[in-house]
Amino acid sequence: MDLTELTQRSGEWLKGSGPDSDIVMSSRIRLARNLADHSFISKATDPDRAVIEGELRQRVTDLKTAGEMFYVDVSELPGIDRQFLVERQLISREHAESHGARGVAIDRGEQVSLMINEEDHLRIQVLHSGFDLTEAWKQIDAIDDALEKRVRYAFNSKLGYLTACPTNVGTGLRVSVMLHLPALGITRQIEKVFRSLHKISLAVRGLYGEGSQAMGDFYQVSNQITLGRTEMELIKQVGDVVPVLIDYERRAREFLMRESHENLHDRVSRAYGILSTAQTISSEETMHLLSSVRMGINLGLISEISMPTINALFIRTQPAHLQKIRGTELSTADRNIERASFLRHHLSKDGGGSKN
Amino acid sequence: MDLTELTQRSGEWLKGSGPDSDIVMSSRIRLARNLADHSFISKATDPDRAVIEGELRQRVTDLKTAGEMFYVDVSELPGIDRQFLVERQLISREHAESHGARGVAIDRGEQVSLMINEEDHLRIQVLHSGFDLTEAWKQIDAIDDALEKRVRYAFNSKLGYLTACPTNVGTGLRVSVMLHLPALGITRQIEKVFRSLHKISLAVRGLYGEGSQAMGDFYQVSNQITLGRTEMELIKQVGDVVPVLIDYERRAREFLMRESHENLHDRVSRAYGILSTAQTISSEETMHLLSSVRMGINLGLISEISMPTINALFIRTQPAHLQKIRGTELSTADRNIERASFLRHHLSKDGGGSKN
Repeated sequence: MDLTELTQRSGEWLKGSGPDSDIVMSSRIRLARNLADHSFISKATDPDRAVIEGELRQRVTDLKTAGEMFYVDVSELPGIDRQFLVERQLISREHAESHGARGVAIDRGEQVSLMINEEDHLRIQVLHSGFDLTEAWKQIDAIDDALEKRVRYAFNSKLGYLTACPTNVGTGLRVSVMLHLPALGITRQIEKVFRSLHKISLAVRGLYGEGSQAMGDFYQVSNQITLGRTEMELIKQVGDVVPVLIDYERRAREFLMRESHENLHDRVSRAYGILSTAQTISSEETMHLLSSVRMGINLGLISEISMPTINALFIRTQPAHLQKIRGTELSTADRNIERASFLRHHLSKDGGGSKN
Repeated sequence: MDLTELTQRSGEWLKGSGPDSDIVMSSRIRLARNLADHSFISKATDPDRAVIEGELRQRVTDLKTAGEMFYVDVSELPGIDRQFLVERQLISREHAESHGARGVAIDRGEQVSLMINEEDHLRIQVLHSGFDLTEAWKQIDAIDDALEKRVRYAFNSKLGYLTACPTNVGTGLRVSVMLHLPALGITRQIEKVFRSLHKISLAVRGLYGEGSQAMGDFYQVSNQITLGRTEMELIKQVGDVVPVLIDYERRAREFLMRESHENLHDRVSRAYGILSTAQTISSEETMHLLSSVRMGINLGLISEISMPTINALFIRTQPAHLQKIRGTELSTADRNIERASFLRHHLSKDGGGSKN
């Protein structure tokens, strides 16, 4: 398996199934781990990094817990391929933009990714479709246990797992649930909801993690605290708040369907119309319109497109994906044309009434 | 033939044929005439008007020059039917909103309409598709000659035909050419062009004549002067300027196709996409989008729709038409929904991906 093969398909987490997948795009858990007897990345020399990468690479590719893993040497990838992995949520932006020996091991279904030499020596990530923290936890716990038999982690009996940044010390756990909340956006309730989440120490981020803007009405809700609680308590805290958010979004959708049905239908239907006929379109507008279409599918206002198709389009219309699919580097203007062509091809049966 | 029958079809002048019909929607000539020995309308009593209407009604329905004429007693029509005739360009807004005995005789092809008791006793109008003033003049001249054998017009050997308003005295002639000038709008040259036309005493109006705004990039160019020149001179003045305007518009389209091809294609294609999928849409937005699609068809950027279809949609999506077609009065909100439904039905093969 290589990266080009990945362009032909979508990760398991995009299949649009799983509990509450109308509103919950994905459930993600990651664990931060560091090897004992090695410097943290921030203090590691280049040779240190190479040693860490070599040792962990061996361990993670040997791992059979999540099926066959394939390893990508991120340090040797061209920028466009690193960006491609970020868009697929397989590595972080920090990992892409870092330097020195580093890599990522990925399973065939793209549910599991093990980043070596990101902020910590090892970041284990499991990504499931829908609201599925229980299964995600079982999977990541098994991987963590299997690895712990092969390596010695930096661990302190009082603090727990030691990490490069103090905010991850303890469990090294981050639980993130990605929610699609367009109706809370339309009804202008989203800011209020987020203020409430901050009060109970939950973080809200956009599609691509820290510092990224909320594009396409997608929001990641995750824990801020990693210390002084068990993994199960942390998962429960996020897990308990998600049904409340799902309920808010469902009520907002019902309100719009009841009180503003034609306008909602109009918004959804026009979004589909524009995506099916545009000849040039930015990534931002695409996300915005796909968000409306996604909600429209869930509300039964659009029936011609499947949820996996729409979920995949969110990822596959990103800049690096378009360039990988096209097989060449493209300017922003050319990407916008390519993106429109790609969308027309995937959404309209006959090109939407417009010549190509 | 009655008005309901008209809802099922379009007038000849919408067929989108005729010279330069990519840019010239229609060529219109009208003659203002008054009966001798009767007061002008502004001074006529109700019984006077009834007498005038009775006499002219007999004459115009007897007329065979333009084939069989059918007569509509406008004074007995409900408001929606009067508005319907305005939208079809068969009577003027003034005629619709006036009071007392009045009517209009219309030929089957809707090329000829003879309004009785508008501002003048008789307004003869001929409307042809495309840039076709010569044929329009031949037709209206024949009708005028035929009528002049049956009635005595108010005529002064020095001034010519006498009319209610001094601006029409002389020939009583107005020559109007309706042009579709979207590219001059996009390239922001339209105001400059109009200032030049005013300097040579030509008037520019919107789709529905005096005081109406330019909707859908349609503009009527017509003569202001009616006195002191022959009919042929007046027709020539308008006829000479139209090719210049056509040339300006063609150059602007070529410029956009060359310098801004993707953006132009995008504008046209999205307009089609929105029209094919909207669930609620105003008359104004409809005109605006149809205008882009119309240009797109002419430039070969859209091939699935015919020009007569688009031309007819400009008229048939107007408020009174929608209500006549639907067979019931509708609120503005309901009209917007009905309009969107009508457009989807006529533009998209499968409802544009959205359920109805």
